[in-house]
Amino acid sequence: MKTIGSTIVHQGDIFRLRRDEVVLPSGRKATREVVEHADAVAVVAVDGTGSVLLERQYRHAASKELLEIPAGGIEPGETPEAAICREMQEETGFFPRKLKKIGGFYSAPGWATEYLHLFIATDLVPSPLSAEDTDEIKLETVPISRISQLIVEGVIEDGKSIAGLLWYLMIREEH
Amino acid sequence: MKTIGSTIVHQGDIFRLRRDEVVLPSGRKATREVVEHADAVAVVAVDGTGSVLLERQYRHAASKELLEIPAGGIEPGETPEAAICREMQEETGFFPRKLKKIGGFYSAPGWATEYLHLFIATDLVPSPLSAEDTDEIKLETVPISRISQLIVEGVIEDGKSIAGLLWYLMIREEH
Repeated sequence: MKTIGSTIVHQGDIFRLRRDEVVLPSGRKATREVVEHADAVAVVAVDGTGSVLLERQYRHAASKELLEIPAGGIEPGETPEAAICREMQEETGFFPRKLKKIGGFYSAPGWATEYLHLFIATDLVPSPLSAEDTDEIKLETVPISRISQLIVEGVIEDGKSIAGLLWYLMIREEH
Repeated sequence: MKTIGSTIVHQGDIFRLRRDEVVLPSGRKATREVVEHADAVAVVAVDGTGSVLLERQYRHAASKELLEIPAGGIEPGETPEAAICREMQEETGFFPRKLKKIGGFYSAPGWATEYLHLFIATDLVPSPLSAEDTDEIKLETVPISRISQLIVEGVIEDGKSIAGLLWYLMIREEH
């Protein structure tokens, strides 16, 4: 596929909308609209008691409260590791002394550029940072043994959280 | 959170962009931009030999080829089940005689409305349908025993596919 034209349709606060003209392998012309969103980070954070830190917050786009792993956008000039530490301090009040990247994935590759770097955080120490524009977040600690049940029962309805938590459970059981 | 104003910023082909004015619980006003995307379906399709049907296709938003489970948008008036059957026939050439909904999740609840219904499909029979505007898709069948390896090695880099495949592996092992 070859891009022969590109227009920014809208410059938003957290993403911008691009409209590309492309030539398909068949030779036919088509348009592809893309949401350009900065790369992001998400983290399975496990405390000393073997519980995972989850966040309950109202999500305006979903029009409901969701239970999710900590996550957030990478700011300009920031490494994924620094973004994780900042997000965890702002949203959970903990700093991860051990951080391991386990993988990553696109959130919605059919129409958005966002790529999520996935980490496991352990050895958590209290170290809160205040954030400016965060919606109200309620922290919940859930024993690892209950995570798969919460997913199967539909209590966790966020793609990155399901992917991240099941990934963690899989490699944890391998070690 | 209360919405006090809402404007459609852009009406696109597969999504539209909405800008809402909201009042946060603190009383402060803020704006929230939302990508409105129709709900979608995704399916872990397992053939008679115990292999999973995966699709390799170039994703313009990711600027690369990705390996994904079959998925697609629900068309107006269509049930999720009908959407799965149509997408599978168009993209894989198979019709699923057994279909089971196992759950669902938001793709990117921080900024998009898209909700994905997740299914397991078995008892697959050849029954191709031609689609109009599909990018070139190469079908690959991967033994279930290799799936977790493909995820850990970063070969599968799509959030819905990782969530769906690991979910399938989890409940499969329980039965």
